[in-house]
Amino acid sequence: MVQVKVGIIGLGAQGSAYAEFISAGKVKNMALGALCATSATKKEMAAEKFPGVPFYQDYTELLESGNIDAVIICTPHYLHPEMGIEAIKRDVHVLIEKPAGIYTKQVKELNEIAAAKPEIKVGILFNQRTNPLYQKVKEIIDNGEIGGIRRTNWMITTSWRPQGYYEQNEWRATWGGEGGGILVNQAPHQLDLFQWICGMPKKVYSNVKFGYQRNIAVEDDVTAVFDYGNGATGVFIACTHDVMGTDRFEILGDKGKIVVDDSKKVTIKRLYKSESEMSASLTQEEVANIFKHGYLGDIYKEEVLEFNSVWGGQHTAAMENFASSILEDTPLLAPCNDGINQVELANAMHLSTWLGKEVELPVDEELFLAELNKRISEENKYPIKK
Amino acid sequence: MVQVKVGIIGLGAQGSAYAEFISAGKVKNMALGALCATSATKKEMAAEKFPGVPFYQDYTELLESGNIDAVIICTPHYLHPEMGIEAIKRDVHVLIEKPAGIYTKQVKELNEIAAAKPEIKVGILFNQRTNPLYQKVKEIIDNGEIGGIRRTNWMITTSWRPQGYYEQNEWRATWGGEGGGILVNQAPHQLDLFQWICGMPKKVYSNVKFGYQRNIAVEDDVTAVFDYGNGATGVFIACTHDVMGTDRFEILGDKGKIVVDDSKKVTIKRLYKSESEMSASLTQEEVANIFKHGYLGDIYKEEVLEFNSVWGGQHTAAMENFASSILEDTPLLAPCNDGINQVELANAMHLSTWLGKEVELPVDEELFLAELNKRISEENKYPIKK
Repeated sequence: MVQVKVGIIGLGAQGSAYAEFISAGKVKNMALGALCATSATKKEMAAEKFPGVPFYQDYTELLESGNIDAVIICTPHYLHPEMGIEAIKRDVHVLIEKPAGIYTKQVKELNEIAAAKPEIKVGILFNQRTNPLYQKVKEIIDNGEIGGIRRTNWMITTSWRPQGYYEQNEWRATWGGEGGGILVNQAPHQLDLFQWICGMPKKVYSNVKFGYQRNIAVEDDVTAVFDYGNGATGVFIACTHDVMGTDRFEILGDKGKIVVDDSKKVTIKRLYKSESEMSASLTQEEVANIFKHGYLGDIYKEEVLEFNSVWGGQHTAAMENFASSILEDTPLLAPCNDGINQVELANAMHLSTWLGKEVELPVDEELFLAELNKRISEENKYPIKK
Repeated sequence: MVQVKVGIIGLGAQGSAYAEFISAGKVKNMALGALCATSATKKEMAAEKFPGVPFYQDYTELLESGNIDAVIICTPHYLHPEMGIEAIKRDVHVLIEKPAGIYTKQVKELNEIAAAKPEIKVGILFNQRTNPLYQKVKEIIDNGEIGGIRRTNWMITTSWRPQGYYEQNEWRATWGGEGGGILVNQAPHQLDLFQWICGMPKKVYSNVKFGYQRNIAVEDDVTAVFDYGNGATGVFIACTHDVMGTDRFEILGDKGKIVVDDSKKVTIKRLYKSESEMSASLTQEEVANIFKHGYLGDIYKEEVLEFNSVWGGQHTAAMENFASSILEDTPLLAPCNDGINQVELANAMHLSTWLGKEVELPVDEELFLAELNKRISEENKYPIKK
């Protein structure tokens, strides 16, 4: 195999864009092998835009066509795991658009089937993991440069969505059609980066608001508190109703602090001596002196790094990583096992507010599904999930 | 009365400083009438520093001496309400150092007795209410310039306290001697400003850490989520173990946003059209266009105000307000009725973590006291409280 022949399943905004990137030769080592969408309109569009590329209305036909080595799944969220599973069963490598799924139970099934076939590459399209800024932040943390984490805090309220956005499609912002609001649509990248960089919490408390500033059934506002189980805590805040949104990510460690502003500027403060040592080694006289003069002296070095904002970009880099994992066994940037963490966080945030209490992770998958199905039943528009 | 003759009860760091300000003539319309402290050492110190000023070791003697019109209470926190009550009973005006008390039950008693004697002025020394920066922020909110509040967020981790600080006195950072940690000692000013500016929440959830980074019984780390009952939420974060502390206060409203950095810089963004209107009035075509081009256009006006940092200052201004309330019936900047709100917030944060769940405000005062007494009993050093 010199190039990976890829089939795109689902030709909405994301799927169409990926098909264009690939057919225009923008993705190294990838060729467009086939397309799939259920609607006749999409079929016409495909014939016009991608002449000669085989088109299927049934995705299993595409999987079995022999025209492709791999697929990228860009269908509605709920379908991601089951389509992923069908691809793996047919020895087709698969890259799944985020989120990996809507509830952990279905993502677990996907992961189990993937684990049984390690030769088949199964990745999640967390393209922001290719963002050099977040790679740098992760590197600093992983290297222990700011010591053990004590506090994490990400306020990311930049995903403004007016009412008209939600009214574009009937499935949007419904429990049965989309499976949630900002937690499953706009915030998955940040939830994934958050846990990729800082690790998973042990407990989550949330105060999630459903239809707070928008006429929708699902959440448009999230405040969540993480407990990492070792004393460290975190806060995650997101909403779709702040038209002048804030994007500020702070990580406090024993040896320093990182602040990321607007996903562009990283300020790193590295202490010369860890905070624990500073606290323990000061004599009472020194303490009294500090409080008298209010001056601690030169205790840290500051570094400021500026990056170009690449939110929404980096899709080709993530696809190239997928191709190279197939061709050269390069590690996947976001293997499917990692995808469940973001789903776990979103589920925990929904469940905590539904139950009105803190929840432990991993969340009770059956309880989550039952609570989700309650809301799907009340909508009376979509089938309940299994 | 031309000048208010003031007695200072308690001559620790704060009480001594106030005595010096007043005796040096730095507080308009106030004269030093008497001093009170229980220890013999303080008596000697007072005789040397404030010759001729009557000194009492029993505060009721001071209250009944006829040497004073008013007192400032600077004793350990637990004593504030009962000493305040004794002063009011003797028709002595009283200014109480923050906090108003440790548990709402005792502060309520103080407030009830104060309410029965409206001619006696009873204030809380929330000197930060004289800070021009916070007065400006409150004015903007009260004027409705940023519309109804949707989110509040204050991370104030600048109160660094090394281990040696806690070891200066035996009573520090104990349940029975001090009544708590950062919530009753370092953060009361911010808790008061927070509620003064943004109002009181209806519910509070907290994740408070006791002795997390310091060898103390009480809290050195606080994360709390507020629910204002109308959909709006808030977050309050404070700790004593961040030696490069953050001070960032953000308030999001329907018509704008205020961000206060380092209690020095205020950035105000005022939307030309409220967010609700913007959301409701965009057509689907306009929405599609915004998402295609990622540009909303000129939607707000930004104003940046710079202030000198005055944390820890403004004590004389607060004392002058107290004098002028006595002499000219000027409204008190922080009447004792307001003092209970900060105590309520601190109690709610303690209680939520002790119970492991969200609590409604006002907190159950008997339950809080029982939980506090549990911890005081375990220390086995101080009497339980009533």
